Amino acid sequence: METHFKTIGTIRSCYKEKFGIPRQAGLVPTATATLELLPPFNRAEAFTGLEGFSHLWLLFLFHGNNHQGWKATVRPPRLGGNARLGVFATRSPFRPNPIGLSAVALERIEQHAGKVILHLKGVDLLDGTPIIDIKPYLPYADAIATASGGFAAEAPMGHLAVHFLPQPEQTCQALEKDRYPGLRQLIIDTLRSDPRPAYYQKNPQKSCFGMKLFDFDLRWEHNDDGITVIEIHPSHS
Amino acid sequence: METHFKTIGTIRSCYKEKFGIPRQAGLVPTATATLELLPPFNRAEAFTGLEGFSHLWLLFLFHGNNHQGWKATVRPPRLGGNARLGVFATRSPFRPNPIGLSAVALERIEQHAGKVILHLKGVDLLDGTPIIDIKPYLPYADAIATASGGFAAEAPMGHLAVHFLPQPEQTCQALEKDRYPGLRQLIIDTLRSDPRPAYYQKNPQKSCFGMKLFDFDLRWEHNDDGITVIEIHPSHS
Repeated sequence: METHFKTIGTIRSCYKEKFGIPRQAGLVPTATATLELLPPFNRAEAFTGLEGFSHLWLLFLFHGNNHQGWKATVRPPRLGGNARLGVFATRSPFRPNPIGLSAVALERIEQHAGKVILHLKGVDLLDGTPIIDIKPYLPYADAIATASGGFAAEAPMGHLAVHFLPQPEQTCQALEKDRYPGLRQLIIDTLRSDPRPAYYQKNPQKSCFGMKLFDFDLRWEHNDDGITVIEIHPSHS
Repeated sequence: METHFKTIGTIRSCYKEKFGIPRQAGLVPTATATLELLPPFNRAEAFTGLEGFSHLWLLFLFHGNNHQGWKATVRPPRLGGNARLGVFATRSPFRPNPIGLSAVALERIEQHAGKVILHLKGVDLLDGTPIIDIKPYLPYADAIATASGGFAAEAPMGHLAVHFLPQPEQTCQALEKDRYPGLRQLIIDTLRSDPRPAYYQKNPQKSCFGMKLFDFDLRWEHNDDGITVIEIHPSHS
């Protein structure tokens, strides 16, 4: 049985490339996104009552990985990239149906000029992600206090200290005043979980890494003290 | 953008019709089901590691409702069937993409003769439900202790007393010994939440109701003391 699904909206996120995206929703509470509904799903009445919920579920397509198909086993980053687990024991994108599931915080619902835009926090979503469903998070059914979590029982807590060189510190302050309030904390929250692939965590020959965040490039260096942000400048793309 | 999805497995559940199914997963912990994976997804290695998780997410198709399309607003049973809410503020099946989401308990994974069968508890799924994804329930990301739940903040706890007439009591005992251990508790758990449509809860002209459970018909009566099971007999279909 094959079924067709429609995209109902598109994510605009601070994360412009896969590298650096938090590995689950909620790990970086300062990570913001908007979800703009596409016609004919941009009807205000379709969201009546949603404002009473603090969190919602997003069902989305792993649009960056579609072409690669599914794999029976994968190597989760949580296990250092070595151990193989069944794809159904992980949240890997390489699934038979490349659907992702994220619980995010709902900040507010914006409605104007025929648009419906959800403002979200705690996202783990790539910019441009197609959304196929939105559901309220029902604490009595979804928050299972007794659940035990296999190989991923504990949150991968960020533990690295994050410092800024003077120049990127200044740039960050200017960007915060200009268009990106809370940017410094977002950078710290995103980097302290160590976005590097497991390979580099064990073989630190390479110490400099970069990622796009909003419309600028962020570069940092790994050293004995943790992480130092060395550059923030406008993206050329 | 339209995307095709494949069914990866099919649910075999005690619930053979929509009437009587719990309104969310976990509300009837004794409700059992099996999920048999279809080829090529019935590969044992695709499930390695899943046995360490107490719960999993099922993404499924609302196959009983597909033809009816989506509705911008719905009348949730929780609100007595009167108030209209946006479909995205509910877990109603009448969604743009008719995908359901349930967190269920994983009892065990059976593997033999090329089959992979997951044994599940706490289901809210109709027999025959097509499954499109299985994901581990990650407590650190999915169990949000601080979430607040809008109109559905509290679980719809079953509060009705459930009695059995002598004849169905005997039948139930025989069925428990024969093929259905725990049947009596399943009947109590299923009925005490009051499966009647909200209309009948407010207008009790009709007092007798019935549902299929496994391969028999169950009939009960609503009265001042709660519910009395009046008949259990083999299904004719």
